[in-house]
Amino acid sequence: VRLRSYNRLVRVSEIGEFGLIKLLAQEIGAAFEDGGAPRPGVLVDIGDDAVVAPPVSGAQVWTTDTLVAGVHFLPQRTPWRNAGWKAMAVNVSDIAAMGARPYLALVTLNLPADSCVEDIIDLYRGLRDCCDAYGVIIGGGDIVRAPIFSVTVALSGEAAVDPQGQPRVLRRSTAVPGDLVAVTGTLGDAAAGLRLVRSGASREDPAAARLIEAHERPRPSVEEGLAAVSAGVTCGMDISDGLVQDLGHICRTSGAAAEVDAARLPLSDELRSRFPADAVDLALSGGEDYELLYCASGDALDRLQREGVTVTVIGSIRAGSAAVTVRGLDGVERVWDAAGGWDHFRGGTSS
Amino acid sequence: VRLRSYNRLVRVSEIGEFGLIKLLAQEIGAAFEDGGAPRPGVLVDIGDDAVVAPPVSGAQVWTTDTLVAGVHFLPQRTPWRNAGWKAMAVNVSDIAAMGARPYLALVTLNLPADSCVEDIIDLYRGLRDCCDAYGVIIGGGDIVRAPIFSVTVALSGEAAVDPQGQPRVLRRSTAVPGDLVAVTGTLGDAAAGLRLVRSGASREDPAAARLIEAHERPRPSVEEGLAAVSAGVTCGMDISDGLVQDLGHICRTSGAAAEVDAARLPLSDELRSRFPADAVDLALSGGEDYELLYCASGDALDRLQREGVTVTVIGSIRAGSAAVTVRGLDGVERVWDAAGGWDHFRGGTSS
Repeated sequence: VRLRSYNRLVRVSEIGEFGLIKLLAQEIGAAFEDGGAPRPGVLVDIGDDAVVAPPVSGAQVWTTDTLVAGVHFLPQRTPWRNAGWKAMAVNVSDIAAMGARPYLALVTLNLPADSCVEDIIDLYRGLRDCCDAYGVIIGGGDIVRAPIFSVTVALSGEAAVDPQGQPRVLRRSTAVPGDLVAVTGTLGDAAAGLRLVRSGASREDPAAARLIEAHERPRPSVEEGLAAVSAGVTCGMDISDGLVQDLGHICRTSGAAAEVDAARLPLSDELRSRFPADAVDLALSGGEDYELLYCASGDALDRLQREGVTVTVIGSIRAGSAAVTVRGLDGVERVWDAAGGWDHFRGGTSS
Repeated sequence: VRLRSYNRLVRVSEIGEFGLIKLLAQEIGAAFEDGGAPRPGVLVDIGDDAVVAPPVSGAQVWTTDTLVAGVHFLPQRTPWRNAGWKAMAVNVSDIAAMGARPYLALVTLNLPADSCVEDIIDLYRGLRDCCDAYGVIIGGGDIVRAPIFSVTVALSGEAAVDPQGQPRVLRRSTAVPGDLVAVTGTLGDAAAGLRLVRSGASREDPAAARLIEAHERPRPSVEEGLAAVSAGVTCGMDISDGLVQDLGHICRTSGAAAEVDAARLPLSDELRSRFPADAVDLALSGGEDYELLYCASGDALDRLQREGVTVTVIGSIRAGSAAVTVRGLDGVERVWDAAGGWDHFRGGTSS
């Protein structure tokens, strides 16, 4: 199938759904209705009524997340390949956040008829890049016509189970007073990258490129989630809404409160250099970091670090109801409450 | 949360995503972030990063299918509750078509901001109706804003495995010359129902109501698929594109040809009475029947009937390449070829 005709981009409407499915099957290395062998890890490959994979011994974990053009990414600004990576990565991160291992994805495309075939193939290459990085197989999906582009990924994973049949996963509801609050990686980079994308910043600058990559190609922490379960950590989630808001989710479901010390937030050099005034705010509430947030005892975090996972302790859990208190660089404490905002200032040296 | 305000319907934009999720969680009986026990069949319920279900011993089967308003159903004509049923049923049918048992679904809603909350709850009631009928649990999903309503269901199921670890499922690729072609139920009713919906026919008339129900609330053949696997049937699929086209899929992937005798097609009294002139054509190519189509030996079909599944033999498989020949009521044979149409007439008494 041609991608260009007389130097003009070919539209999806010109090759039809069946033509597009054949191209996309080729991108993921699947034989489509040609009697070829199924891919490794699959028993019945795409082209039948459903895909079939071998039995697994662990608990089953599922998530789904959708990216809509113009809402979750800007097609004029973001390469389609990066949009594809991100569509898969946000789902992989949800599985990582449970301390589970992802393995099979279904991809649904809502496509305007004038979508360029080349763009959709680039999107699929990005999906595939992320699948290859995390051992995920795309087991098919659906393509429908729609006025606005969106991509929905449904992803399944496998979690360890204990001898009683209970899953060994990271929950939001198991934080207890005395736990330390720790995170993987650095925070705020993705939010800074989004600002740069929106402002049309050049990707030539290495610091900008690194921040934009954090936004467009986040790296889910699958191994860090699995290691946490091994280390006996039971409370964790991924940071998607922003550190303070997500820590608020943990506090609400655990019936506890949290304190965070802004001076301890892990900030990248790129973030500090490009956004010196806003670095802490971006790290606290920027969102889309897709790093893991753990609440665990110091012993459990020590075991985790001995497994090779680097974490930064940024605060602690205490008795209370759902509030997250942040001690700023200036020593002022601000309280973020369950209703979803900074509700008042208190204490500190400058109040 | 109110559904009506001063006798006016409340829109989704007025209660927000979080408000809607709480209402929908209530519809499916799930505790949402309130620390309640997970539902039976679920280990970690909605409200965490992903849903977790117990290990299963069988092979894993997955499918996904989307219904778009205005394309796959007409919101002005079809009750939302029926659209919900159908969105789930078409996925259940894909799992049934593999001879597997469905068990966990994820539901993604693409919602215009001015969607009525009441409509979306009705949709969810329809999804729930179908889940209850087939033992499926809704394990969460995603809600995004979009210009046109669509609902995407991703559904997983479980298939039997043989001692060698191979799945015991119904394939499209295993038809062999000498097999009989058989179907469950009656054909053409759903296509007739679609015509009635489009023409705005009254649902008061019992025959019309029965045909419209076949279109809007199809009954997937889960037990008939499982029984077929038990009976040793290996080739089958569900009829969604239409009998002849779907039988063409089997012929293409199996490298065989098929003959169908129109006089043997199972037609309902309602179809015959409302569409006497078109009944056979609707049964041959109307589509969306969601009955099962089997290709199997007479012995295997006998075993299947002894398991209590009523099937109608309508033709047979023979050597050849991908063509489906239909012998009409007039004795004329027409050939439907792999390119997707009736390509010529041949033989018969009136040619």
